[in-house]
Amino acid sequence: MDVKADRVDEKTRGAALDALKQIFGDRFTTAEAVREQHGKDESYHTPMAPDAVVFAETEDEIAQAVTVCNRLGFPVIPFGTGTSLEGHVAAMKGGVTIDTSLMDRILSVNAEDLDVVVQPGVTRKQLNEHLRDTGLFFPIDPGADASIGGMTATRASGTNAVRYGTMRENVLSLRVVTPTGEVIRTSRRARKSSAGYDLTRLFVGSEGTLGIITEITLKVYGIPEAISSAVCQFEDLEGAVDSVITTIHAGVPVARMELLDEVQMGACIDYSKLEGYEAKPTIFFEFHGSEAGVKEQAETVEAIAAEFGGSSFQWATRTEDRNVLWQARHDAYYAALAQRPGAQGWPTDVCVPVSRLAECILETKKDLEETGLYAPLVGHVGDGNFHLVYIIDLDNPDEMGRAKAHSERMVRRALAMDGTCTGEHGVGYGKMPYLEEEHGAALNLMRSVKQAIDPNNIMNPGKIVRV
Amino acid sequence: MDVKADRVDEKTRGAALDALKQIFGDRFTTAEAVREQHGKDESYHTPMAPDAVVFAETEDEIAQAVTVCNRLGFPVIPFGTGTSLEGHVAAMKGGVTIDTSLMDRILSVNAEDLDVVVQPGVTRKQLNEHLRDTGLFFPIDPGADASIGGMTATRASGTNAVRYGTMRENVLSLRVVTPTGEVIRTSRRARKSSAGYDLTRLFVGSEGTLGIITEITLKVYGIPEAISSAVCQFEDLEGAVDSVITTIHAGVPVARMELLDEVQMGACIDYSKLEGYEAKPTIFFEFHGSEAGVKEQAETVEAIAAEFGGSSFQWATRTEDRNVLWQARHDAYYAALAQRPGAQGWPTDVCVPVSRLAECILETKKDLEETGLYAPLVGHVGDGNFHLVYIIDLDNPDEMGRAKAHSERMVRRALAMDGTCTGEHGVGYGKMPYLEEEHGAALNLMRSVKQAIDPNNIMNPGKIVRV
Repeated sequence: MDVKADRVDEKTRGAALDALKQIFGDRFTTAEAVREQHGKDESYHTPMAPDAVVFAETEDEIAQAVTVCNRLGFPVIPFGTGTSLEGHVAAMKGGVTIDTSLMDRILSVNAEDLDVVVQPGVTRKQLNEHLRDTGLFFPIDPGADASIGGMTATRASGTNAVRYGTMRENVLSLRVVTPTGEVIRTSRRARKSSAGYDLTRLFVGSEGTLGIITEITLKVYGIPEAISSAVCQFEDLEGAVDSVITTIHAGVPVARMELLDEVQMGACIDYSKLEGYEAKPTIFFEFHGSEAGVKEQAETVEAIAAEFGGSSFQWATRTEDRNVLWQARHDAYYAALAQRPGAQGWPTDVCVPVSRLAECILETKKDLEETGLYAPLVGHVGDGNFHLVYIIDLDNPDEMGRAKAHSERMVRRALAMDGTCTGEHGVGYGKMPYLEEEHGAALNLMRSVKQAIDPNNIMNPGKIVRV
Repeated sequence: MDVKADRVDEKTRGAALDALKQIFGDRFTTAEAVREQHGKDESYHTPMAPDAVVFAETEDEIAQAVTVCNRLGFPVIPFGTGTSLEGHVAAMKGGVTIDTSLMDRILSVNAEDLDVVVQPGVTRKQLNEHLRDTGLFFPIDPGADASIGGMTATRASGTNAVRYGTMRENVLSLRVVTPTGEVIRTSRRARKSSAGYDLTRLFVGSEGTLGIITEITLKVYGIPEAISSAVCQFEDLEGAVDSVITTIHAGVPVARMELLDEVQMGACIDYSKLEGYEAKPTIFFEFHGSEAGVKEQAETVEAIAAEFGGSSFQWATRTEDRNVLWQARHDAYYAALAQRPGAQGWPTDVCVPVSRLAECILETKKDLEETGLYAPLVGHVGDGNFHLVYIIDLDNPDEMGRAKAHSERMVRRALAMDGTCTGEHGVGYGKMPYLEEEHGAALNLMRSVKQAIDPNNIMNPGKIVRV
């Protein structure tokens, strides 16, 4: 596949690189190792290195760089921590990658307003470290210690979304360098507004194809007075999913409800030396609230789970026990890899209406059995979102072919259930083949928006929509 | 002001009306009374009647009508219940108003998924009536019994937004007839997705300028096990606002926190014969949750309010008492009008970061005192959003001039505090003069989006952005 066929010509490329070198000085590089690192994310997708990498320190530099690149038609790819999963940062047509990791300042913490203003290179762990003494926290947790800029650009989500929402609900405002090099602010810091089109949401999830995010205003929350975690094991997957549906109906504001199927739970028991658990469908719960509120939530959920064949709760109220538990959940990927030394992981996700979740998961697992592949499953059940990680030999075409065919069937199954080809990983170039099927004529409208905002198609070209 | 200067020529107008008559038969009308009613909302803004009104029954009819109008460059204005407040439905350049009130079917209630699919003409009260037996409810309450289509198009919000969010957070997916007459669906019914640009949010709040909404999938919620209401009166406004800020910080999930200033409270006491209250800054609270949860929330909030000079809570736990109280809140507008028989109301709203709310309100009230106008104030304090209703003689140019100047200063004050010119009423044509100041270069980007989606500027022209 000659994806680089329509790169710019050598002369233009030279002019762009010269101009970029002028702007960034010794923060401009064409070193191969740096370029390769920046064309690669954490996925199995083929990496594609850019022609150069620059490390931006200011919004103004970014605006200058984008202005030059727009004039020359030279591609620009924004880069946070490179932890995306669908080839988002691959330089499909060469160009320059703008690394924002040096823009890592927390610009203000507005405690009374429960918001913070940060630069795009701030990571979520860094933000929470910074916030700790204020009694506030930022809940979105996609697993990786991703940058806030990247999380915004990919509409990240994760384990807390059922209670706190995704980046869609938690970004209040953005500063963005648009593809023509203009700097805009998408909205004021007020919590709500009906003053015009929702540009904030247009940029959240646009994966660097509409501009570069240079500042993010985020909602934050008071650290709950009480937090407790519990684990509940089920005889079958339907029982686990039905417990979650019933819990949400009852209006119990559970912070996290994470499903691990029996395969993933088996791997976690081995890897994280979890004692007293069996390789069964399992839900990890976390409750946030007042002391009494957390107790009441947990009692309600335990009673609901019991109705659907759930075990008694195994509790973790002490911080250290809770950390062991959630560390095990976070290490699920490594636990799965450890089951097959030498193999690699290929994670993918879909999301369906929660009423179809059990059915979708069961059909997917049955299909998986027929392929003979090993692929543990974890799910953000409250959202109807689940992940499969194929643990696979990437150099084995037969295995790869079976995984590809299986993942395609999984996407089509989700779409047939009125679901989406990706609940939180994003499109990158990995999920592009499904967007036509998912969106139909709406994809043309997305294309019109892209063309209007990025007329020269310089921003992360070859991602989300083809123009 | 000759706003109709660039109406289409007579021949085009004739062709458009003929074609529309063909499509809609006896649901097409040019009767003056109907046209006038459809060019007018509930605001003081000058109404402007369209050339014709059609009453649509199907999405297909709408698509046909828009296709014809797009070919001829004939304006199309969508109409729900006409309860908007900034001249949203005025036919600035003539054209046809498409009334969607006959499209009032609730298409599905997906209880397990906590969502419903409705046609645009369904009103919020109709929806809640329909849902009652299912144990579900739709929380967004802008006051008027508006249509869901209109509420979506204006990004409506209201008293429950502090807990349940606005239409931005509660619309899952839309079907839309685009300005070229194509039918699109903005997303699947899954709760979350990262599969491309957030078209749903682009249409929410677009006020009919990007297309006509023909179907809405909404989040709904389980009716809480327990609901209780309480009223707390404060010596001063800062005390009231600080109580709310502290309550939110403490993570208490209060469903409603409605501020009435001493002027509005005085009017409500008179109008709704409220006993045992004084004309002081007052907050109406509503708590949703389990029996124990509601009790705990209320105790926490009462203790917080006491710290800031709040009175003891006056309780309304019985449904009838609660209804009296909230009816009084809903009747605030009529209560204010009753203070000055013969006068009319001119409602306006702004929204600021909540840390600036007390300051913004106090300065606005001081300024008001100097104008000599009578204008009660209500606020959705948790969001930083407040409303002023000038009770005014619309035929008195002096009064109108003072109100206009005062409202302009209020908007500028909100903008200076990093707020927005409208928190929930929308832009229509009334707030258009402030968008340049609020959005700067971002307004150009909104204009590009509008031009890309509606190249012939047929959809509700003259609203939000000038093209």
